[in-house]
Parts: sequence; structure tokens; C-alpha cells
Amino acid sequence: MCGFLGGSSSFTCHNAFFFLIYLQAAEIDPPESTPGPPFPVFTRQEVARHHSEGDRVWVTYGSDVFDVTDFLELHPGGKSKILLAAGGALEPFWALYAMHKQEHVLELLQGYKVGELSPEEPPLPTPGDPYGGDPPRHPGLKVNTLKPFNAEPPSELLAENFLTPNPLFFKRNHLPVPTVDPATYRLYVQGIRGRALSLSLQDLKSKFPKHKVTATVQCAGNRRAEMNALRNTNRLGWNIGAISTACWSGVRLRDVLVHAGYKQGDDGHVSFEGLDKDQNGTVYGASIPFEKAMDPKGDVLLAYEMNGEELPRDHGFPLRVVVPGIVGARNVKWLARISVGPEESQSHWQQKDYKGFSPAVTWDNVDFSKAPAIQEMPVQSAITEPSPNALVPPGELTVKGYAWSGGGRGVIRVDVSLDGGKSWHEAKLTGEAQSPGRAWAWKLWQLKACVPPGTKELNIVCKAVDTSYNEQPDSVGPIWNILGVLNNAWHRVHVSVGED
Amino acid sequence: MCGFLGGSSSFTCHNAFFFLIYLQAAEIDPPESTPGPPFPVFTRQEVARHHSEGDRVWVTYGSDVFDVTDFLELHPGGKSKILLAAGGALEPFWALYAMHKQEHVLELLQGYKVGELSPEEPPLPTPGDPYGGDPPRHPGLKVNTLKPFNAEPPSELLAENFLTPNPLFFKRNHLPVPTVDPATYRLYVQGIRGRALSLSLQDLKSKFPKHKVTATVQCAGNRRAEMNALRNTNRLGWNIGAISTACWSGVRLRDVLVHAGYKQGDDGHVSFEGLDKDQNGTVYGASIPFEKAMDPKGDVLLAYEMNGEELPRDHGFPLRVVVPGIVGARNVKWLARISVGPEESQSHWQQKDYKGFSPAVTWDNVDFSKAPAIQEMPVQSAITEPSPNALVPPGELTVKGYAWSGGGRGVIRVDVSLDGGKSWHEAKLTGEAQSPGRAWAWKLWQLKACVPPGTKELNIVCKAVDTSYNEQPDSVGPIWNILGVLNNAWHRVHVSVGED
Repeated sequence: MCGFLGGSSSFTCHNAFFFLIYLQAAEIDPPESTPGPPFPVFTRQEVARHHSEGDRVWVTYGSDVFDVTDFLELHPGGKSKILLAAGGALEPFWALYAMHKQEHVLELLQGYKVGELSPEEPPLPTPGDPYGGDPPRHPGLKVNTLKPFNAEPPSELLAENFLTPNPLFFKRNHLPVPTVDPATYRLYVQGIRGRALSLSLQDLKSKFPKHKVTATVQCAGNRRAEMNALRNTNRLGWNIGAISTACWSGVRLRDVLVHAGYKQGDDGHVSFEGLDKDQNGTVYGASIPFEKAMDPKGDVLLAYEMNGEELPRDHGFPLRVVVPGIVGARNVKWLARISVGPEESQSHWQQKDYKGFSPAVTWDNVDFSKAPAIQEMPVQSAITEPSPNALVPPGELTVKGYAWSGGGRGVIRVDVSLDGGKSWHEAKLTGEAQSPGRAWAWKLWQLKACVPPGTKELNIVCKAVDTSYNEQPDSVGPIWNILGVLNNAWHRVHVSVGED
Repeated sequence: MCGFLGGSSSFTCHNAFFFLIYLQAAEIDPPESTPGPPFPVFTRQEVARHHSEGDRVWVTYGSDVFDVTDFLELHPGGKSKILLAAGGALEPFWALYAMHKQEHVLELLQGYKVGELSPEEPPLPTPGDPYGGDPPRHPGLKVNTLKPFNAEPPSELLAENFLTPNPLFFKRNHLPVPTVDPATYRLYVQGIRGRALSLSLQDLKSKFPKHKVTATVQCAGNRRAEMNALRNTNRLGWNIGAISTACWSGVRLRDVLVHAGYKQGDDGHVSFEGLDKDQNGTVYGASIPFEKAMDPKGDVLLAYEMNGEELPRDHGFPLRVVVPGIVGARNVKWLARISVGPEESQSHWQQKDYKGFSPAVTWDNVDFSKAPAIQEMPVQSAITEPSPNALVPPGELTVKGYAWSGGGRGVIRVDVSLDGGKSWHEAKLTGEAQSPGRAWAWKLWQLKACVPPGTKELNIVCKAVDTSYNEQPDSVGPIWNILGVLNNAWHRVHVSVGED
């Protein structure tokens, strides 16, 4: 499911063979050669002859040569992607995945070693760092990976503001942040009957009315750390902070689509492509149902402002899609192109990622065509205060958190337990009033409870209920899945009680 | 929350004081007088003087006299309802609640006894049985209450047909089944600017196009038996069968509302009143959001046919509302009147029943205004085969069931466990294809599993996942509520393995 050459949104892989470390950025060294008889020595030219299955497929990494023919079919990102490196070096393709510091990947690779490069071969030219143009970030963010940049706000700050300050809003990038000149930027919109629109920022701001929508965006991988703790998915270990809320301003996607000739009532999908791309030119892409895009109450925006400021570079400058109620992955940033068609986006991220599976599905039997791409998300909540394993004094205790549900289904209640789920209390909810069916923003919540003297520990649990009276499942195990997405089990925080 | 004089949809009550048995239908006798000094003796005329709080409120039941002044505020159905009996007999009001055979209710009542009726008082006239006009029913139904009639199909038949045969479709009546002459029947529709429509059956069938919708209807109390087993709610103990599916035919509510002058885009609620009423003339009523009613993709019907046959009397002959994706309680039967307004229906069943509460809420602190009326329902599934506590042979085992979710969110997966939730298998789903967002009908499912010899028992569990990736909660306790509604915890069936 992970991509070999840039097709991954997760940079992880159960057979993580090909997720090696680009030497320039690597913090671990290539593995030492296995003791044993010396390996045969090859020139790069000799390796280059092994560029197809008929001739066996060889690749190099550092000074080692590997025959990966028997791995082609096992490559979760697909055979076609791995074949791009056939006969050559792996390094240029992994410049984009600099954060994969997995020892076991290098060990796996060693199993396919068939030789070494001649010591007379010149080293590879050092490519520039594709992430060299990324913007500076707030030092308070909890970084999951630097390249690409994936980071979340500290949990204890998360519920302090109904609108998350832009610098603390979680960042979830799949690729380097593109550098865009707003003066020459154009949005391409495929219109009906072969027509097309090319819109400048000024066109967008002047030709269409400006709309504001307050919406929470959540990554499908939010709270994956709890799934990883149970059984490692080898994917980004998000804590509870891959979710944030902003007031977005921009034009309605619906208005742009109507301008391009589309009418409500049609079926199909609206596909988006970003300006962020890998070294092969593959761009980030995703799609949403046409019906959601055209629904006047769907509130889908092409946003150029975030909390009253120009859209920050990490959040899609100069233009991004905001699809309220829908998983973050469809809120395409650095928007380049919009098209409409009968099929969903064919991108890796729509077809081979961001889908939910049964805990029974493994990497050996997964069939991506069987699960729908995640759009609306299930009801969610988490405890932001106190922190796990904190020491809290007896007496009054304040428990805080957030709660949200997908599809515009507002949160109507949050139940909090201090005894692991045996007894419950209702939390007090706060948040902006939103229309029924268009409750795009989270609710923050708070419970003041009295902890009697003598209490040794508390098992704090929260669960939210939405307008469809959906509840969160009790435990992580039965919803665990190979992609580590959609964790909305009760959030649990254990604390000790005592004086400091 | 229960109604004293007909305001109840559940005929149950935590302080069930007033849910006594109408003598004519009673199968248990009034309690014997408590031993002790003889009570004073009163005439009915003397009792009648105690008809307000200033004079104390007395009522009679059988030959006993009770002062219920101190119970007025405790009456869950409200003081105004209980005062209707002030100074007189309870019996006429309970003719409609003939099924309340609760010994503890009669014991509670004895605590308020202040006297006895003079032996010279003539007995009350015997009223006719208000349920005398109810239709005959299929003998295979599992009856929860006879008067009103509430019954479900046997669990093992439930998933045998995608469309539930009409005689086996679960029946959930709140009141006696009205007898309606189709020739004189009129539907009253409040129109805009004070206008009104009065439509005959012939008008409906000839003036509006006929539409067909296959939709599952589920009572909010489905699977309440599992909640009652944990802590009794004293309400109808539905097993897993308060859910069924039919192909409904009729006219679209939207078409009728447009005919009455309404336009899509307005806010508010559409209220329905039935022809079923209690002895005070209070009719069954409920409402749905105007937006759902007017949505061309909402598929709300005024149905006159069920599975190709004339609507049966138990299901609302000659006309009922079918609101796909919405709790059964809003699918008003024997439809008499439609009105549109800014407020929800003021009926007991919209305001004081069919709402979901935290397990922390008790009858002492419940505030009905704080919970939204149930409309869309959460994702649900149940095991119809094997039966609980069955003996199954080792070897191939077939597990069957149903799965459904509210709001048109289709079921995308059903996970089945044979070991209480430790490991999972995906069931095979069957059902009619339905449009995205309009998946109104359930999916039936089946799993063939191999039970190894030596296995002693199986803890079979199922859980469903809908298109928003909502899952069912693991356990009943944390979603238990005083009304016993919305039980969508994993369904669990324990069986023994062995040869017969």
C-alpha cells in the first residue's frame, strides 16, 4: 500500500523493502555487508542491462547491487512503480521519503543482494534537497516527519482555541511544499463540452462572491498512535492532534463549477490535483462526489484565506479545497486543476490509501477495490487535558477535549467517565452555533468533577454522540486496520491522583 | 416519560404508579387491602370534591380511594395529565393500557390509599374494549403487547426475505387501530397563506405520480431487551425484530407539499397526525425536518401500498408516511393531517419520547428539552441465525443476519467474530443496489465458518460499518438510557457446539 516511488501517502509499508533512506539525509548508515564469500563486482553499465523482468531486475543502493525480480509482485505500491528504478540507483527516488529510518527495511533489502559496485564507479551526483524550499514552522509543533512535513499541535493546546491558530493548525503534507508565484498562478477548470477555464487569483477574487465557512479538518490517521501501540502499522504515529479548526474564506466550488457549465443533479465525481509533486511529476490528487460539490448546503470552498489571513504555504497557498465534513485527504492544497467525470480520482491516495478495512484484512489479502474511499468520517472525540500519566491533585478536576463528526452531523453530547466506563457524566459543550446538517466545526467540551481524597488513580474516558445518535466504539482492537485509519474508539487517559 | 392518560408510547414508567390494569382486561387482581385499622368509607360524590390541589387530589381504583396529591409532581407524564382523573376513577383512562401487569405498580398505589368506596356505590359501567376493532394478526408473530398491538417476527425468519412479508413485518402500534372508510377518507394538508387541501384517496392516486421506494423501518426500541436485561427500563422488551423492510408505493410527500404551495429551501418542520387516538381524543403525532420532506432525494412517501398490496390495517390503511432512513416513530400511520411550521410536532412522542440520553440521566434529572428528537438512526446489525443458546454441530456453520444504517448511509461491511471479538471475519452481503446517500434498505449478510472439532462453545458477535465508516459500540452498558432506545451495541449470540 505504500508507494515505492512517490505513490505513498504514508511512507510506510508492511514489506517495507523499498523505503530506504536517502543517503544525503540519512541518519542511519547503510547496513554493513553480510559476512561470507565476497560478492561479485559490477559496473553501473552492467547493472543497467538488468532493467526488465526478462533480464532480471537489478537496482543499486549505496555500493550494493540487488536483484529484486522476485519482489516485484510483492511491492505494495505496485510493480509499475518499482520498475521505474530498474537497472539504476534507488537514491533519486527516495529523496522524497527521507524520513524512513527503519532498520528492518535495510535488513530486508540485504536479502536480495547479489553483488557490489566496482570501487572505480564514481559516486552518484548529490541532488538538491527537494524539501529545501519548505517554509519555516512554529517550534511548538510536535513533528511526526520533517520531510515531508507532518506535525500536530501539542495536545494540551488543542482545545484552548475554538479556531486553531494557523501556526499550530496540524500540517499534513504528502510531498514538498510547492513555491507558487501568485501573480502567474492559474487554476485550470475543465468545463463542459471540452471547454476549459483558466482563472487567476484575481479572477477568483473578483468574479465570484466571497464566502466564509468555519470547518474542522481531520486526517484519517488521527489517533493512529493508539492503533500502532496495539500492532504497528508502520505509518505516521499521529497522536490526538491531526485535527484542527479554522474559519476559511474563498469562493464556493459550486459557483466555479456552474461558471464552467455544470448543473446540479448530475452524478459523478469532482477531481482535484495539487501543485505538489514527486520527482516523476506525479501530483497529489483526490476527488469528492459531484453531488457534495454542487450542493448549496455542502459549503465546499476554494479557500484563499485561513482565519482571516492569507492562506499559509503549508496549508495550500495560494488556493486549496476545503470540503467540510469530509476527511482531510480530499481537501487538496496548492490546487492546480479541477475536473469532473464519472470516475473517482485515479490517484494513489484515492485508490490505494485512505480506505477502511476490517481487522481481518492483511497485506496478503487486501483488495483495495472492495472498500470505498473515505469521505464522511465517523463521530470522534478526545481528551486534551489532563495529559496521559499526569499527576492530578484530589479535589476539583477539569477534564477538557474536543468532539466532532463528519457529514455535518453536529455533536449533541459528550459523555465522560472517570472510572474507565463504568459510570458517566455529561460534559458541557461550547462552540459556534451551526445549521442542522451543516455542523462542520467541532465542539469543545469541559467537565468539572470532584476527585475524593483517597483516590489513587483515574481512568478517564470520553465518547461523543452525533445528531444521528452514532456513538464511538469502546475499544481500538476491533477497528484496527492495516492503514491505521479511522480510529474513533473511546479516548482513554490514565492519571494518578496525589500531591506533587 | 410515560403518559398517565394516553400520552405514552411505551406504556412504562419508572415511577409506574399509574400504570394499572384496566379491570376488564386484567389478569391480575387488585391488591388486597393492607391489614390494619379499617379505612374510612367515602361515596363517589365525596371523592369528587377532591379534584384540585387546594382540596387534595383523590382518585379511585376498584373500591379503593387514594390521595395522590403528593404524587402529582412525580408523575412522569406530567401533572396536567394526572389531574384529568382528579376526583374520579382511574379505570376509564387505562382502558388503553391494558397490558400493564406490573405488581409493583399496584403496590406503589397502595401507599397512597386513604379510604374505601361505600359498598353501596354502584360499580362503574363497563366500557367497550377500545381494541375490539383491531385486525386479526399472523399467529407466528412474537407478541410484546396485545393492546396496543406490538409484535415482531421470529428472529430466525427475519433475514430469510429481503422484503419482509406483510403479515410478518413488525407491528408497532401506540393506540387502537382506527377503522377507516376509504370512500370517505380525506387527507388534510395545511397549505401556504391559510389555504388548505382536502384530498381523497382517489385524488392522491390520480393527481400525483406513483413512486416506489424500498426502505427498512426500525423502531427506536429495537433490541431493548438487551438493555432491559442490564437494567429494566420497564418498556417494551423488543428483541432484534423491531425492524423490517418493504417496497412502499405511493405519492411523494414533496409533490403534495409543492401542490400546497411550499417551496424547497424553506426551514421548519412537517408535522403529521394520525387517526389513531386515545379516549381524550389525543392523536398520535410526529414531525420531520422540512428539508428532508422536500428533498427530491429524500424519497419521503405517502404510501398506500406495501409490497405490492393495499396497505394493511396494522400498517396504516389507507395512507401512511414512509420516511426512509428515519426512525419508525416518524413514519406516521393512518395519516389524517399534514402541517408545516417553524416548530417540531408538539406531540408527546416528539417531545417526551424517542430521544436519546446519556446513561448518567435518570428519571429524577431528565430534561427532555436537552436531547434532539431521534430522526436518523445509527448503524445497526444483528445475528438472526443461529439462535441464542442453540446447540450447533462442529463443521460448517452458517451465521446470518441483517445490517442497516440511518440517513441513507449504506452498509459497506459486516464483521463477524466467533470468539467474542478477538478475531474477525468479513460476512458476505446481499441486497438490492441503491444510490449513494439513498441506501434506505438493509443488507442481509451471511458467513460460512468452520468450527473445528473439540470446540465447546462460540461467542458469536457481529458489527456493521456504514458509508461514513461509523461502527457500532462494543457494549450495551455505556449506551443504556432510561428510554431504552438506540441500542446498536454489537449483537452477541452464545452457542454450544456438539452433536444433538
